[in-house]
Amino acid sequence: MSNTADAYTQAGVNLDEADDAKLRMREAVHETHIPGVLGGLGHFGGLFDISVLDMSQPVLVSSIDGVGTKLKVAFALNRHASVGADLVAHCVDDILVCGARPLFFLDYLALGKMDADQAVEVVRGVAEGCRAAGCALIGGETAAMPGFYAAGEYDLAGCIVGVVERSRIVTGEAIRAGDVAIGFPSLGLHTNGYSLARQVFDGDDLGQFVPDVGRTLGDELLQPHRNYLPAVTPLLDADVVTGMAHITGGGLVDNLPRVLPDGLAITLDATTWDILPIFHLIHQRGEIAWGEMQRIFNLGLGYIVLCRAADADRALALASAQGGRRVGVIHEQQPGESRVYVEGLPA
Amino acid sequence: MSNTADAYTQAGVNLDEADDAKLRMREAVHETHIPGVLGGLGHFGGLFDISVLDMSQPVLVSSIDGVGTKLKVAFALNRHASVGADLVAHCVDDILVCGARPLFFLDYLALGKMDADQAVEVVRGVAEGCRAAGCALIGGETAAMPGFYAAGEYDLAGCIVGVVERSRIVTGEAIRAGDVAIGFPSLGLHTNGYSLARQVFDGDDLGQFVPDVGRTLGDELLQPHRNYLPAVTPLLDADVVTGMAHITGGGLVDNLPRVLPDGLAITLDATTWDILPIFHLIHQRGEIAWGEMQRIFNLGLGYIVLCRAADADRALALASAQGGRRVGVIHEQQPGESRVYVEGLPA
Repeated sequence: MSNTADAYTQAGVNLDEADDAKLRMREAVHETHIPGVLGGLGHFGGLFDISVLDMSQPVLVSSIDGVGTKLKVAFALNRHASVGADLVAHCVDDILVCGARPLFFLDYLALGKMDADQAVEVVRGVAEGCRAAGCALIGGETAAMPGFYAAGEYDLAGCIVGVVERSRIVTGEAIRAGDVAIGFPSLGLHTNGYSLARQVFDGDDLGQFVPDVGRTLGDELLQPHRNYLPAVTPLLDADVVTGMAHITGGGLVDNLPRVLPDGLAITLDATTWDILPIFHLIHQRGEIAWGEMQRIFNLGLGYIVLCRAADADRALALASAQGGRRVGVIHEQQPGESRVYVEGLPA
Repeated sequence: MSNTADAYTQAGVNLDEADDAKLRMREAVHETHIPGVLGGLGHFGGLFDISVLDMSQPVLVSSIDGVGTKLKVAFALNRHASVGADLVAHCVDDILVCGARPLFFLDYLALGKMDADQAVEVVRGVAEGCRAAGCALIGGETAAMPGFYAAGEYDLAGCIVGVVERSRIVTGEAIRAGDVAIGFPSLGLHTNGYSLARQVFDGDDLGQFVPDVGRTLGDELLQPHRNYLPAVTPLLDADVVTGMAHITGGGLVDNLPRVLPDGLAITLDATTWDILPIFHLIHQRGEIAWGEMQRIFNLGLGYIVLCRAADADRALALASAQGGRRVGVIHEQQPGESRVYVEGLPA
């Protein structure tokens, strides 16, 4: 191997460093394993025995995503332990919209130069996010890509596979006028709008304490993407959900229409939830109108569950412990009008 | 949206361009759909109904990977139509090692700047690779990552999910001394060793015709990663397979040990297959010893199937149409010795 390591090191690939990283990731990965994982069998792939699920008509729900430019904040602070959990939470929330619970996850980490310490820190974060979601990390690729990423930089993406009983798939087709929107708070920007946010704070010291947000700018921008599985599961179990939306890229305005049936719109009352201070800060510093902010950021509302008005009290009772509040209502839409109205935004 | 588009465009993200790309990818993506895909339901994730499979104990086999630095060749030639199929074929071959056939695929494309033409060309290539493997492209993420990639450059990764009957999983545990190795030819470097190859050819004109390989250097380096599913399926159906290996990173020497039981080694006879001219060229130009070449490149042998000596004639009859040849034999290993011997390499 030494010859190879030599030649490959000259080419920017260090196989020994990669082997070392794999070895140190192993324990964290194993801790995520759940019934169904067939460890030690897949030498080129990860195996999951779905017959352990004991479902009548299991439908797999899968999503792939990356952390996005939030990674630049992690680079600037040289803190790589949380972006992995951000990625997993984002993917968990995406498949949760269909009513699916996660089964397993695979991560893709591409580094400009193989740095075992950095790779292990990132992948341990992925494993932590998987453990928090009861999701097995059954595979991953850690690739040295010389000439692709600046020194100390990388890209991180991942794919989740979850499952839902076919008869329990949530499509949004059940949404009717009069349905109530229950919103769950976000913890910050989550993983969206960072290209704009980084431009707004360009040149700012990420280490500076920002009184408005109660922490440093860097800490605020690295706030985790919330995993809404614990908040939404009781509502799914109670069978009160007519539709859901994960507020990601496109903000409040562009995600809800993805599940709204034709002829229906939603009006959100922004006075019913807390618009996090970071969004006020971005609005002020970037001179970005709220009408535009709502198309880019979650504004403090990370996930929305819709239910019948008659079920609203029961649903809110289940949701309140997780911060769920009544934030809006579904109504008929006049032809050619918008699908999403956000009232009560600051002037 | 215009306000948003403006602000985001300044931040390096063009939403209109992204929407345009999605629209133009749609048809190619739909053409990959197979029974089980629940189209139009998953607004945040892709859905696949595995109850259509009618299997007794289905085990999911999943793998994630990237194209790697082969992308740099695509950038240099501004040809992006084939790297997607490379990625799919690599993933198909990885799960094939367990005996799994592909079900669905998701791709992750991260571009420095959203270029609809480029993104559509890449994703159509992914869809083409999926169609060739009978695999549904049920999801994907196309992300603009300003400040991550040089203008016109991108990274491409993807995740495959396949399935195998639990009783038919190929682990390699069945391999015994005396088993025969049947090798299938590769089409070139596939997706491994490019960091080194690019260094060897650094500064060369990719457009130059190379008589030894019968095409331009660029065309040779962009030769596709072969999908071995059609070649291997007849052998799996005939139930003669004791183990398999996909020759990827680590070349001939480091992939076979991943499936070899303890105490067993394999001897390959390099005179039984064609070492493609490109490998001779890399050997000469890079002054890289063959002992090192065999640890980095497939040397013309992309996939190996092991079977009992008694089944070898029947297996070879099934494999020959796909270029399969007898390339080696399994034998007991002396303690402390190597697991893979490659005889008959050029001096």
